[in-house]
Amino acid sequence: MGRTVDTETVDSFIEKHIDDALARLARLVAQPSVSSQNVGMESCAQLVAAIFEEYGFDARIIPGSGYPMVYAESSGRSDNTLICYNHYDVQPPEPIDGWDSPPFEATFRDGKMYGRGIADDKGHLISRLAALDALRSVNGELPCRVKFLVEGGEEIGSPDVPAFVEANRELLRADGCVWETGGVDYAGRPDITLGMRGLSYVQLNARAMSRDAHSGAAHLLPNAAWRLARALNTIKDSDERILIPGFYDDARRPTRAERELFAAMPFEEEEMRRSYGIQSFVLGLTGTEAREAVFSPTANIAGLSAGYEGPGTKTVIPATAMAKIDFRLVPDQDPVDIAEKLRRYLRDQGFDDIEVEYLGGERAAVTPVDAPLIQIALRTARDVYGREPVVVPLTGGSGPMYAFRQELDVPIVTCGMSYPESHVHAPNENIVIDLFVLATKHMARIAEEFAKL
Amino acid sequence: MGRTVDTETVDSFIEKHIDDALARLARLVAQPSVSSQNVGMESCAQLVAAIFEEYGFDARIIPGSGYPMVYAESSGRSDNTLICYNHYDVQPPEPIDGWDSPPFEATFRDGKMYGRGIADDKGHLISRLAALDALRSVNGELPCRVKFLVEGGEEIGSPDVPAFVEANRELLRADGCVWETGGVDYAGRPDITLGMRGLSYVQLNARAMSRDAHSGAAHLLPNAAWRLARALNTIKDSDERILIPGFYDDARRPTRAERELFAAMPFEEEEMRRSYGIQSFVLGLTGTEAREAVFSPTANIAGLSAGYEGPGTKTVIPATAMAKIDFRLVPDQDPVDIAEKLRRYLRDQGFDDIEVEYLGGERAAVTPVDAPLIQIALRTARDVYGREPVVVPLTGGSGPMYAFRQELDVPIVTCGMSYPESHVHAPNENIVIDLFVLATKHMARIAEEFAKL
Repeated sequence: MGRTVDTETVDSFIEKHIDDALARLARLVAQPSVSSQNVGMESCAQLVAAIFEEYGFDARIIPGSGYPMVYAESSGRSDNTLICYNHYDVQPPEPIDGWDSPPFEATFRDGKMYGRGIADDKGHLISRLAALDALRSVNGELPCRVKFLVEGGEEIGSPDVPAFVEANRELLRADGCVWETGGVDYAGRPDITLGMRGLSYVQLNARAMSRDAHSGAAHLLPNAAWRLARALNTIKDSDERILIPGFYDDARRPTRAERELFAAMPFEEEEMRRSYGIQSFVLGLTGTEAREAVFSPTANIAGLSAGYEGPGTKTVIPATAMAKIDFRLVPDQDPVDIAEKLRRYLRDQGFDDIEVEYLGGERAAVTPVDAPLIQIALRTARDVYGREPVVVPLTGGSGPMYAFRQELDVPIVTCGMSYPESHVHAPNENIVIDLFVLATKHMARIAEEFAKL
Repeated sequence: MGRTVDTETVDSFIEKHIDDALARLARLVAQPSVSSQNVGMESCAQLVAAIFEEYGFDARIIPGSGYPMVYAESSGRSDNTLICYNHYDVQPPEPIDGWDSPPFEATFRDGKMYGRGIADDKGHLISRLAALDALRSVNGELPCRVKFLVEGGEEIGSPDVPAFVEANRELLRADGCVWETGGVDYAGRPDITLGMRGLSYVQLNARAMSRDAHSGAAHLLPNAAWRLARALNTIKDSDERILIPGFYDDARRPTRAERELFAAMPFEEEEMRRSYGIQSFVLGLTGTEAREAVFSPTANIAGLSAGYEGPGTKTVIPATAMAKIDFRLVPDQDPVDIAEKLRRYLRDQGFDDIEVEYLGGERAAVTPVDAPLIQIALRTARDVYGREPVVVPLTGGSGPMYAFRQELDVPIVTCGMSYPESHVHAPNENIVIDLFVLATKHMARIAEEFAKL
């Protein structure tokens, strides 16, 4: 613990070579890789493999039923094996109008770097590699064996990861896992997140007629948009309670230990509200209640579409209407089961004209706070950031953590450069260069300490 | 009554010159003129004026606050003046995928001609002109004075027509009016429509936050799409009853005479249901009840939009959401009043976060069945079509009829080539060539008989 000559040399190497890392990040951002639209995926997988080789890793592209995975590994001094999970796919850039610079062109402004995927997750991949490169350059080799699994379907719910991990337990065998992302809060405190929520993503497709009609016949012809609006309103009440029978059956409540962590957790609610221009949170939640609300699974309308959406007027009865809903799940809820319960519920409510299309999902997962890897991350975060880190028992987002926790039986730690204004999944996604440097130093420190466990 | 040598000569002229008329129609269709998107409007007004000149009319383009109007006139033998109301604007072509041929390229297939606006309303304008051209060519002059007002804003609710008609009563002075459209039913019976519904078109704009957010925060951040779905559900109940206080206050019920016409009116409900691929009408309406339902004003969701609408998944909380609603109004309802009542209602229900934007509207209007112009249209329809015409007391669609009825105090008659599969306001809009010929003959006959009144 404390700074040694070695860690100072490593930090200094990281600082000196930061422009190289950012140049590689710019190359990676310039390669679109939108999994939900199948844009640029093969090319991006090849670029990721090439970057691994540049950093001295053995890399290979593993084709599969979905987008290819990139697997890479390198030996190291200790027998301990660290596996890093990352993804090369990004969210769609839409709405394009919202961007101040082209989404697929990394752009520097005011100490930040903008681009789609720059925080989620390309910046993290490059940061991990820059950290390991510094360790290798200073010490001649890595402190431990390191494996990488970089997938291409994270933004569409990682459909291939669970089966792949299950089928490749030996290849991926490890003693600890560094998760794809992590970051700091508004105050700049690093947060270590112990778990992620699950996800069940469905699309509701309403069909009322075989074709659109002139709205002069609206007293006779059924309207798919009305049917959809009615169906949506049966899913959740105005108190945010989800009305699907059995929805909460498997939902685990926070443990006593988790509730203590929530109570101790700093939570910058005022900053968050200001950032989104709102007066209050849903249901007026505040304080510990707002923090623990992450243990309330959600039903979020992520998209709506029907009829005429252009400027001005068009008088049409839409024959079809569509809603996308993502359910964020808490530990022990099963995404397929949730979609099935929704399907049954809508049918029982008489909405036979609405198809429930399951687009993907994953289960929640949590690592205990007393796992040695977590303790290393907390300790080194104090060192690097000079701040007391924040422990987040469960975060609102999702990822294929469950496969790693369940199949590889590894503790999982988060670290990284995200911050509350990263605008992930939204226009003007960005990272702060200074935070990129800190995250890279933190990653180097975690690997060093992990090698000694 | 009955066919005279003259009418046979006129009919024969129409048949011989049908290709000329269709070529002019193809030219007009090739010129996009989407009022709601401000596409091609000036060019189309100029083309319409040029076509009037080719047909021997004095035409001029009248600029105004909105899209220009085209006014044209020609003298004739009798002192009676007939005014034709038409429009050169069309509905947006979207969804483009739904078209089997390019929307702005008139295309012949199976005795039909396809294109955006070909039925609504460019075909009718050319048919009127072809009919008058035949009368002029056979008799050396028109039977009566004919005026045309061709506007560019019908598809956006004719915002400029009421004020224009009021300010130009002398210019537009007439004894009868031929409305922009008309047609036949599934069985090929011509229908004469006595009135049109009004329209109040609003857009609901929900705003929940200053920007979109990652849906991992859905337990805390408000969702505009949910707010919109909830607001929509307060507007109408599942029995199609509109819940806005005072909505029905001014709605006139059908008169005894109108109810008799509804009872006598053939109504091809089975054909209509088959055409739209539905098992039953809204509320299971059938028979006279279904016919009279046109006197029930409607609230139609014409468009919905929020968040991510592309393929696959995106996990976003939409900061904004939008719904377009057109209310079809019955006689005596006021469109501005309806929008205001909706605004007040949503505010009272706590939806301060939803803006009600009024996009336009018009009042309903009806001509009595015993007006001589109506009787002429019925008589000549029997002659031309060899069928008993159908009298429709009120049709579901809308138009600026009220301005003509109120300000010019003229009876208004419909005739034309539309048919139930014209797909107006939808992809593959089309006309049947044989019906174009019949409609042109009918128009010629109406003008001839009207001149003798």
